[in-house]
Amino acid sequence: MSGGGKRVYLAGPDVFLPDAAARGEALRAVCAAHGLAGVFPLDALAGGDAPGWAGLPEALRIARRNEAHIASCDALVANLTPFRGPSADAGTVFELGYMRALGRPVFGWSNAAAPFAARSRAFCGAAAARGADGAWRDGEGMLIEDFPDMADNLMIHGAILASGGVLVAEEVEAAGRWRSLSAFGACIAAVARRLSQG
Amino acid sequence: MSGGGKRVYLAGPDVFLPDAAARGEALRAVCAAHGLAGVFPLDALAGGDAPGWAGLPEALRIARRNEAHIASCDALVANLTPFRGPSADAGTVFELGYMRALGRPVFGWSNAAAPFAARSRAFCGAAAARGADGAWRDGEGMLIEDFPDMADNLMIHGAILASGGVLVAEEVEAAGRWRSLSAFGACIAAVARRLSQG
Repeated sequence: MSGGGKRVYLAGPDVFLPDAAARGEALRAVCAAHGLAGVFPLDALAGGDAPGWAGLPEALRIARRNEAHIASCDALVANLTPFRGPSADAGTVFELGYMRALGRPVFGWSNAAAPFAARSRAFCGAAAARGADGAWRDGEGMLIEDFPDMADNLMIHGAILASGGVLVAEEVEAAGRWRSLSAFGACIAAVARRLSQG
Repeated sequence: MSGGGKRVYLAGPDVFLPDAAARGEALRAVCAAHGLAGVFPLDALAGGDAPGWAGLPEALRIARRNEAHIASCDALVANLTPFRGPSADAGTVFELGYMRALGRPVFGWSNAAAPFAARSRAFCGAAAARGADGAWRDGEGMLIEDFPDMADNLMIHGAILASGGVLVAEEVEAAGRWRSLSAFGACIAAVARRLSQG
């Protein structure tokens, strides 16, 4: 199913697409073209679910399964395209943090190119304003992070860079936001280069 | 600064409050009342920054520092109150995933009590609709997770339960959303009980 080569976990809200399985195959094909084995969150575990999970609700079984998938991979690639807000999908971000703590390289790609600060201000709309200290704050007084060159919250972009990964962001028009493979392809090429260094 | 006792990392968007340092002390006082040492993301590292971080931009130094803080703690408690969208703050979610992969218990609290499915549908507004298969989807066709009893994306709630932690959610009116310590206090009491079991 996942072929030979180093294993790459494909985190992202692609699992929410109406044709999620086909999307997984499309992502996997790009990986295969670079000699990598893509692991999609909807894949069954090689050894099946652990016996102890049988009594768990489905949501909790999925969570255990994805943690096991990540632990079985050599790297993680996250679709960080903003999802229902200025940041990436929460499940994707969780998984990125999980792999980072395992000490393996993490990568990101996004089909939105605006920096996180600009996206966050746009999300907050007219309520976003500079305070007396010059810092941007939302309508509740909460700071709007304004660090240069961050594509999302600094923990996300910081972890990718610290791990030796890269973050590829390209602006894609709304109709292709969940379809374009351009940034993903560039990201997978970088993963292949990184993992070939051992 | 953090007193004696087991160390608990206090993840959350509390760092974005105008009086973030005072907020950190308020959270720390609750921890101390339960014999725990609260570690706030804005704290300096006990041993200072690593020499190699000197040339990094501030955002990346903060990311390294918080990863080191988490690795120094016995448990993590996340403020999962929805932040600029239906899910928790992205940095907080990253940190929860990081600690989960370290194999230590993770806990969550939220000042919003509606389930994730209901919050997500509300965020998507009139665009949210059931498809022919009965599943809720947003205006782009992306699935709206609809698992029972999940307070956020299933990776988040699943990790908390799998680690032996708890998630405490209480509805707080908007004015007190970033101030109430009620759910936090209940969560910290659960952390103290869990960590006293060794």
